[in-house]
Amino acid sequence: MLTLDKIRDAETVLSEVTHRTDVIRASKLTDEYDLFLKTENLQITGSFKIRGAYYKISRLSDEEKARGVIACSAGNHAQGVAMAAAKSGIRSLICLPAGAPISKVEATKKYGAEVCLVQGVYDDAYQRALELKEERGYTFIHPFDDEDVIAGQGTVGLELAEQLKDMDAVIVPVGGGGLISGVAFAIKSLVPHVKVLGVQAAGAPSMLHSLKDGRIETLSSVSTIADGIAVKQPGSLTYELCRRYVNGVVTVSDEEIARAILALLEKEKMVAEGAGAVPVAALLAGKFPELKGKRVCCVVSGGNIDVTSLSRIIDRGLLMSGRKCTLNIEVLDQPGQLFKVAGIIADCGANITSVHHEHASETGIIGCFVRIDLETRDFDHIADIKRSLKSQGFKIS
Amino acid sequence: MLTLDKIRDAETVLSEVTHRTDVIRASKLTDEYDLFLKTENLQITGSFKIRGAYYKISRLSDEEKARGVIACSAGNHAQGVAMAAAKSGIRSLICLPAGAPISKVEATKKYGAEVCLVQGVYDDAYQRALELKEERGYTFIHPFDDEDVIAGQGTVGLELAEQLKDMDAVIVPVGGGGLISGVAFAIKSLVPHVKVLGVQAAGAPSMLHSLKDGRIETLSSVSTIADGIAVKQPGSLTYELCRRYVNGVVTVSDEEIARAILALLEKEKMVAEGAGAVPVAALLAGKFPELKGKRVCCVVSGGNIDVTSLSRIIDRGLLMSGRKCTLNIEVLDQPGQLFKVAGIIADCGANITSVHHEHASETGIIGCFVRIDLETRDFDHIADIKRSLKSQGFKIS
Repeated sequence: MLTLDKIRDAETVLSEVTHRTDVIRASKLTDEYDLFLKTENLQITGSFKIRGAYYKISRLSDEEKARGVIACSAGNHAQGVAMAAAKSGIRSLICLPAGAPISKVEATKKYGAEVCLVQGVYDDAYQRALELKEERGYTFIHPFDDEDVIAGQGTVGLELAEQLKDMDAVIVPVGGGGLISGVAFAIKSLVPHVKVLGVQAAGAPSMLHSLKDGRIETLSSVSTIADGIAVKQPGSLTYELCRRYVNGVVTVSDEEIARAILALLEKEKMVAEGAGAVPVAALLAGKFPELKGKRVCCVVSGGNIDVTSLSRIIDRGLLMSGRKCTLNIEVLDQPGQLFKVAGIIADCGANITSVHHEHASETGIIGCFVRIDLETRDFDHIADIKRSLKSQGFKIS
Repeated sequence: MLTLDKIRDAETVLSEVTHRTDVIRASKLTDEYDLFLKTENLQITGSFKIRGAYYKISRLSDEEKARGVIACSAGNHAQGVAMAAAKSGIRSLICLPAGAPISKVEATKKYGAEVCLVQGVYDDAYQRALELKEERGYTFIHPFDDEDVIAGQGTVGLELAEQLKDMDAVIVPVGGGGLISGVAFAIKSLVPHVKVLGVQAAGAPSMLHSLKDGRIETLSSVSTIADGIAVKQPGSLTYELCRRYVNGVVTVSDEEIARAILALLEKEKMVAEGAGAVPVAALLAGKFPELKGKRVCCVVSGGNIDVTSLSRIIDRGLLMSGRKCTLNIEVLDQPGQLFKVAGIIADCGANITSVHHEHASETGIIGCFVRIDLETRDFDHIADIKRSLKSQGFKIS
């Protein structure tokens, strides 16, 4: 049975290793809500997962500890278990699908885990982990459906209840449901008037469907940029806890998630991974209109996003906000045309980042195309540049 | 006279408005040092500047407050003064050079300041600010050479001395010297054994030169990506305080700063601007070998970097670490060549992000060029891909 005492015990145990992450005011993200962020992306290992993993390991018998632990994950849970095991001085074996990003494999190894790459997808790695658990007598550390793991994640709620006494609601990402189960239990035990709300990716709404249908549902497939919460089926413990303690669950699209990642980066100076950004995404997309003007805390659960993905999200965000654009300009195939175009753009105060000039067939025998990438201020600025080019006789396609 | 009591008074005054920023352990950045970060990039307004500005304003007479304040800055000081004035309920006028980034102008306006765009560079804006101060009777808020401003910034040191009692050294960015003066005074008053070290941009080493020469030096020009510390001349107060309390100052190159920005983003999930990253840059570049194995705190002074610049720094970092590359491949001008190249690259597990195919004259009458942008794992991976392409007869230039 999950109890508040157990979560308090987890807090005591965790105080040795984890960081009591800060709650910061996020007034630059929005002025429609009195918004705060619980910064678990700044937790050691870059996510909250170390909490559950470390507490779970602390509860093992000496004999179990002597044998070691095993887990299956390509993400934050892998790193959480690996580091928790290292900090506890025990061995760990992590099964990952062979296609997992090299950076995550390396991070897991760096924390001291043995890594077993399994051909296939997550489900194959999971099956292999269960086999290895039997073969070697390791204890399997479930990523969410385990009372000790949930108690560990619940310490986030315990801290929040102290750090932000007068909040009206806390919004939590939901994958398998470990984090929100622990947080909801802690919050409802201590400050029951505070709403606990969940957010899932639209491409992986397993908990939402399960709660709606009143029984655990399994999705046949999941697809979202928020890989940390791409879970096909909630746990049975987590489903029960969510059913009892969570006030509501909504979903957000990948586009909304990407916008939230960019906003957190630009306005709040923080890197959030997809899963970590879903609460902010939901709020910014207006999914909780009843919270307008209220004091709300979003749990930014993790920051382990590949920098290549981050770079793409920034680029897309710049395009979508008019701070970057590509112009295809039709010019005459005669000297001085590019010079003239470049001059007009310079007069408008935009910055050229790339030029591609080609003799194109579609434009007829005397035409050429110039494709120019620009850094711009906003959509008005882009409109100005286009107007200037057109007024000088250039055609923009 | 700057006193510890004054900095304590500043702390009391600031408790109304600023955030007592968290100190986080940065074990993923390096294991050569026991490294901590004081996260002033997560301060309201995204930098420490609000501390000095707000405290300074709090010390004005009612009459001075009734008239208002003026400042000259295109960066964090502008936003700090604007928000401090707004929080104090008084008017502010900020002079900026007309070429200042639109985003900074907008941010300053958003905090409620009146903005005066002055043709020319910073020095022109500064002159205009002095004129306007006379004309309108506003109080000029100096960005660093002011005792109250320094006392405000000194609260960073006061907090640090409490938050990280057993540190051996604190490393602070140095532009005009306001932050390090306050921090050094507080640290040396409370925990005098802690070393206080400064870092300047190699392209703007005014304090370093001044300390070396034993008198205030003025640089004829400055050039660095760390625009927040691109200062031609230290203040007279700050020079004196640094001379007395700072244990040493080093410089870092733009390349070192860019690497630190990327490392902070990727490993510690935080956005730092150039100026905010210089302490970490110096440590990672081995500029303080005497601190190896010691407990060190870097002040990450601000995070207000334009997302376009950030995107460029990420791209450069990806290139420099082999996670992105461009291949120019010479192919025969016959069907199936691109298909073959794409197949080889796919077999190597690299991700194609862009392809440019052209009939080039340099390669002779039957040749073509394919330029392919790739996402790769590391330099070994790139070498593998090149080897595979060459073994199939493709020439890479």
